[in-house]
Amino acid sequence: MTHVAIIYFSGNGHTHLMAEAVVAGAKQVSNTTVELLRITGDQITQGRWRDDEMLQKLNQADAIIFGSPTYMGGVAAQFKAFIDAASSVWFTQGWKDKVAGGFTHSGSPSGDKQGTLLYLMVNAMQHCMVWIGGTDVNPSSDAPDAVNRLGSYAGVMGQTAPDMTGKPAEVHQGDLLTAQNYGKRIAEAAQRWKMG
Amino acid sequence: MTHVAIIYFSGNGHTHLMAEAVVAGAKQVSNTTVELLRITGDQITQGRWRDDEMLQKLNQADAIIFGSPTYMGGVAAQFKAFIDAASSVWFTQGWKDKVAGGFTHSGSPSGDKQGTLLYLMVNAMQHCMVWIGGTDVNPSSDAPDAVNRLGSYAGVMGQTAPDMTGKPAEVHQGDLLTAQNYGKRIAEAAQRWKMG
Amino acid sequence: MTHVAIIYFSGNGHTHLMAEAVVAGAKQVSNTTVELLRITGDQITQGRWRDDEMLQKLNQADAIIFGSPTYMGGVAAQFKAFIDAASSVWFTQGWKDKVAGGFTHSGSPSGDKQGTLLYLMVNAMQHCMVWIGGTDVNPSSDAPDAVNRLGSYAGVMGQTAPDMTGKPAEVHQGDLLTAQNYGKRIAEAAQRWKMG
Amino acid sequence: MTHVAIIYFSGNGHTHLMAEAVVAGAKQVSNTTVELLRITGDQITQGRWRDDEMLQKLNQADAIIFGSPTYMGGVAAQFKAFIDAASSVWFTQGWKDKVAGGFTHSGSPSGDKQGTLLYLMVNAMQHCMVWIGGTDVNPSSDAPDAVNRLGSYAGVMGQTAPDMTGKPAEVHQGDLLTAQNYGKRIAEAAQRWKMG
Repeated sequence: MTHVAIIYFSGNGHTHLMAEAVVAGAKQVSNTTVELLRITGDQITQGRWRDDEMLQKLNQADAIIFGSPTYMGGVAAQFKAFIDAASSVWFTQGWKDKVAGGFTHSGSPSGDKQGTLLYLMVNAMQHCMVWIGGTDVNPSSDAPDAVNRLGSYAGVMGQTAPDMTGKPAEVHQGDLLTAQNYGKRIAEAAQRWKMG
Repeated sequence: MTHVAIIYFSGNGHTHLMAEAVVAGAKQVSNTTVELLRITGDQITQGRWRDDEMLQKLNQADAIIFGSPTYMGGVAAQFKAFIDAASSVWFTQGWKDKVAGGFTHSGSPSGDKQGTLLYLMVNAMQHCMVWIGGTDVNPSSDAPDAVNRLGSYAGVMGQTAPDMTGKPAEVHQGDLLTAQNYGKRIAEAAQRWKMG
Repeated sequence: MTHVAIIYFSGNGHTHLMAEAVVAGAKQVSNTTVELLRITGDQITQGRWRDDEMLQKLNQADAIIFGSPTYMGGVAAQFKAFIDAASSVWFTQGWKDKVAGGFTHSGSPSGDKQGTLLYLMVNAMQHCMVWIGGTDVNPSSDAPDAVNRLGSYAGVMGQTAPDMTGKPAEVHQGDLLTAQNYGKRIAEAAQRWKMG
Repeated sequence: MTHVAIIYFSGNGHTHLMAEAVVAGAKQVSNTTVELLRITGDQITQGRWRDDEMLQKLNQADAIIFGSPTYMGGVAAQFKAFIDAASSVWFTQGWKDKVAGGFTHSGSPSGDKQGTLLYLMVNAMQHCMVWIGGTDVNPSSDAPDAVNRLGSYAGVMGQTAPDMTGKPAEVHQGDLLTAQNYGKRIAEAAQRWKMG
């Protein structure tokens, strides 16, 4: 059995929809458990994140997929608070050789999201993890329902133009499908890597 | 009189169209000369770029705007060959305190173009230049004719879906308008910085 | 009169020493006021930073220098919480055309600090600021007392090998001198830019 | 049998010494062949790289380790010319699921080398490869003979202060040892990934 964990923060619900699509993809792979873990503001005191149970679940995973909106060109502060808290794991290299991946969402097509994915890789490399990027590397088109329409490679991007009318968060079909394919790819990679 | 130089490489003509739009914007500013310099393969021998006259023109500029397509996640090799040759200028800090900017183009909306702009900044910082980013930082929309529709901040991005029919290169109106505004902003910034 | 503000977070005191060196450099420039602003954990509630008075001081500055330790390959979460809160300023482009700079510190010579400085640039570009990098771009040597011994260009880096004996934080003389020169450069640039 | 290929460019010989150390490490792993491929200027015509035989060897490898000096904050132009030529492989995703890694060298401890490693990752992700970073993630010290003395995670860094006396290139013992450990790690990872 391979264990895949998705840990993410979502402010307005878009990254949450992306996370659910990643979960759906990972669940397509047999002999795989999938754990969805959401970071929340109330885990953070004086700027420091703490949730020992959540951290324990990550320690038991074979693959960890990191997800955050792109705010002001980087991961959300709440997500970074989790990352900083996981430095306790770094000291003992507790995540060494786990499979890693990442996804992000923002309001415009480019929107500095590549920087967020690069950062997620930087962090994963400090943990000595194995990074797996997106699988739909040849974008089929830039239409809203096309896989990898935005042209992302290191991980998955979603984009939704800001909406001020208060309706529930939505994400383009193409982005959700890309996220789903990615979840499947990570789960398969984790299985292959574990068997090796 | 302020001197603005745009130096760029273009393989398929898209980045060339972006460069022309930057020129058009810079020319809107009074008391400004604009020099458009195109890097070509025949300036490169054994992987090394050389064009003393072109380098001399850059040395005389108050602002240099760097442009390259994004190929395989970075500036084109031909453009990098120019950059490497300009290390001769770096040793004497000949471009210190010139104003700098950058633009890029690729086939998909994100398409790792942020990495290219970041690299152009990295190079400019080694030259101790002053970096000026885009002016249309609040994207008006993600429609093809909207300024900064892609959501780029460090410089300007253009995107055109690959076309295999052999027709001449085209760039979306919104991207060209963004490039034009950027050329104007850089020329104005160079003037202000020179006066100070 | 030119107003320079330094806003930073420091966990163990090293980045604080860097910040003080930047202040010392900026104060060497006549007709300049220097404001040192330290981000603290108690400004953060539920992961969100708030300090209206501090934000107001930044709004009044001509130049803002951003400083953060590099934790797990990026800015500290506490610093990012401030950045995210400043998105309220971004919406109205309240920091447009202010001069910007950055510095960071970590435990090893490279230590993913470049990524932190790049991120600080990314954020500044979203705010449409003018980025000024380091002035000592030709490292004089890699000896502990040499300016820019680490070879940083986009801003200033400091490095101190981790110490577990509990003695007060120290930073190499070369790094502090580099930070001091940088503070002076930013103050001069802000003055020049304001006059222009 | 697992096939590991190292492809690199070296101008002054330092990156070549790093490459040899990577080879030595990979050879420590049983049932592994190691191919050392050096990019040269005479493979480049009009700025375009071509060496079909070399590309063929990469196509047959299970793991590709990319190495380049950091020049002006990025990979050498000659190396980028190779990267751009490999876009022919990208179109058919010929390197998909190969293991990837990278190393770089420059004259100062930080010296914008992180940007080079990040770029190598960006390129590998476009090829849908599996990225494996360094293994010595907890730097033992910043002394010249210590593994990962520079604090690099995404791959391996070497640094040698510029020498103008014309003596043969040298690289610190710690950097070579780190490169050796990395070669071993990549070879082991390729084996594990292939078996899975």
